[in-house]
Amino acid sequence: MINNGYYSQEVHGPYELYDIGNLDLEEGGTIRGCKLAYATFGELNPARDNAILIPTWYSGTNKIIEQVYIGQGRALDPHNYFIVIVNQIGGGLSTSPHNTPPPAGMGHFPRVRIGDDVRAQYKFVTEKFDLKSLALVVGGSMAAQQTYEWAVRYPDMVKRAAAIAGTARNTEHDFLFAETLVDAITSDPGFNGGFYRSSEDVRQGLLRHAKLWAVMGWSTEFFKQDRYRALGFSSLDDFIINFMSAYFNVMDPNDLICMAWKWQRGDVSRMTGGNLKEALGRIKAKTFVMPVDEDMFFRVRDCEAEQKMIAGSELRTLKSIDGHLALFGADADFLGQVDRNLKDLLATRG
Amino acid sequence: MINNGYYSQEVHGPYELYDIGNLDLEEGGTIRGCKLAYATFGELNPARDNAILIPTWYSGTNKIIEQVYIGQGRALDPHNYFIVIVNQIGGGLSTSPHNTPPPAGMGHFPRVRIGDDVRAQYKFVTEKFDLKSLALVVGGSMAAQQTYEWAVRYPDMVKRAAAIAGTARNTEHDFLFAETLVDAITSDPGFNGGFYRSSEDVRQGLLRHAKLWAVMGWSTEFFKQDRYRALGFSSLDDFIINFMSAYFNVMDPNDLICMAWKWQRGDVSRMTGGNLKEALGRIKAKTFVMPVDEDMFFRVRDCEAEQKMIAGSELRTLKSIDGHLALFGADADFLGQVDRNLKDLLATRG
Repeated sequence: MINNGYYSQEVHGPYELYDIGNLDLEEGGTIRGCKLAYATFGELNPARDNAILIPTWYSGTNKIIEQVYIGQGRALDPHNYFIVIVNQIGGGLSTSPHNTPPPAGMGHFPRVRIGDDVRAQYKFVTEKFDLKSLALVVGGSMAAQQTYEWAVRYPDMVKRAAAIAGTARNTEHDFLFAETLVDAITSDPGFNGGFYRSSEDVRQGLLRHAKLWAVMGWSTEFFKQDRYRALGFSSLDDFIINFMSAYFNVMDPNDLICMAWKWQRGDVSRMTGGNLKEALGRIKAKTFVMPVDEDMFFRVRDCEAEQKMIAGSELRTLKSIDGHLALFGADADFLGQVDRNLKDLLATRG
Repeated sequence: MINNGYYSQEVHGPYELYDIGNLDLEEGGTIRGCKLAYATFGELNPARDNAILIPTWYSGTNKIIEQVYIGQGRALDPHNYFIVIVNQIGGGLSTSPHNTPPPAGMGHFPRVRIGDDVRAQYKFVTEKFDLKSLALVVGGSMAAQQTYEWAVRYPDMVKRAAAIAGTARNTEHDFLFAETLVDAITSDPGFNGGFYRSSEDVRQGLLRHAKLWAVMGWSTEFFKQDRYRALGFSSLDDFIINFMSAYFNVMDPNDLICMAWKWQRGDVSRMTGGNLKEALGRIKAKTFVMPVDEDMFFRVRDCEAEQKMIAGSELRTLKSIDGHLALFGADADFLGQVDRNLKDLLATRG
């Protein structure tokens, strides 16, 4: 266990914890007393049909979702909806390698899959809030993976789904990209097989990880158009250190690796013996597939190929030279596009 | 100095060496007795106007150029042209960190720039062959950088230029990508500041470097369409180990870093005080700009922006899901496109 002040109420709160009990994992092993960190906004209506569930992406928590996507007049408006943001396992606030007591934590934390997260989330929202339906499940990147998993696994419960910048079955290219992220961290001698004393011991590996994110997370146009200068950084080095590294280097290496391992293997066709078409055919939710045009690893064409397997779905491509990391919300126009599409989706009968 | 059997006549020959004497470098420092490795094909005609110069790309040598691009009936036909392939400094056959005696070699090898290479090549072809003009300078990737440098630096000598999958001034995104390649190598404790005993000491760093090349060197479609299986590899791991790592891990780490440092800083506008338009305005060669549509770091739009600054130039975009590494020549259709365009170019008056 590591005391890491980044994963705290001060930085990411307010959030609450829900103990779902023991979670038996798809890869074998058990998380004992698995806790999900969550935040809610708005009220559940008497019909209990206005709940929206938002999972978190790699490195993200409830806080950035709250700050960037939720608000009055927005698509995700707490005046109209009961919004539940649930942090993924390994994300640092829910049960994660760094906050699990020995001997099960740190480098001994078990392998978790997207399916484990979604089963845990299902237990949470049905037990805690007695939810019978979700008006919308929406999320970006790894949260899109969870969104697809929800829509395929619980088709009668999910009325609408919006998968932003993510896929239902990960590509091999993306698997490889995520592996380079993991390698960047584990190759640091300070990582010590996952048993370091603090993230600072893995500083160089985390910096390399941050640089790889800079290469693939934005787009070539982001740099070409001096976008990082518009965001207040005076040089490439300034941006790498004071944005990319500032963001990632405070995080826990094992937590990042736990998420990356899941991300690499996201695949709804595990529920149908490898048949992706059959898996996506189970979806009953009205589904919007929302890739970002400049995303370098969740490419539009890969997302579109999946969209075509989902009955009644729509491809709603978002435009931003921020690429995949448009999710961070620095591009106001991108957020406007997200909101317009989500409003359209929420206006459908589901 | 390291005895590395990869850089040998057995693997890359036949090639010859030409000693240009001392080369004073743009960054300061001197390479003493700088030797350029080269191979020639065909004969110089009496008018001495049928010479074609081909520099080498990152990790490439004269051998792959010979095997993939030169041949009877091809655009680069030794029956019609006197073809000179010259290996870049740091490429392993010309003067490089690994073959320079102490104390100047290994981690002490000086910084070299594209401009240093081109000045050395100019000395070589004018002294050795008494060339007054080059019918064509052509090259891919870092060789495109050298091609642009030639066309700007010696505009009266270069009659035609073809820059394949490369830029005249490197982008910041590409700078960053190349930096992650360098970081992958130097972060290996076995690298030891550039003073290792053999490439094997840096095996893990070189493997990470190879994986990064796999992520950025091909395209997402390359993996999506199972292209590596068509090339004879049975799985992603098989491809990474038996192609990517097999290719890169035998190379010398300092040599790769020497090239990467140059690549990062390729910029013809150094000759015009940073004014790229003015630099490209100096070009008198009939120029074809030939990016690859699926290239993930030398993007078509970046190449096109430069092409528009070159008088009388043409954009000839090549199509291949092999992306940047289409240069390797595994896509026969790509090679057909290259040949057709080079034939068109050679048919112009130049």
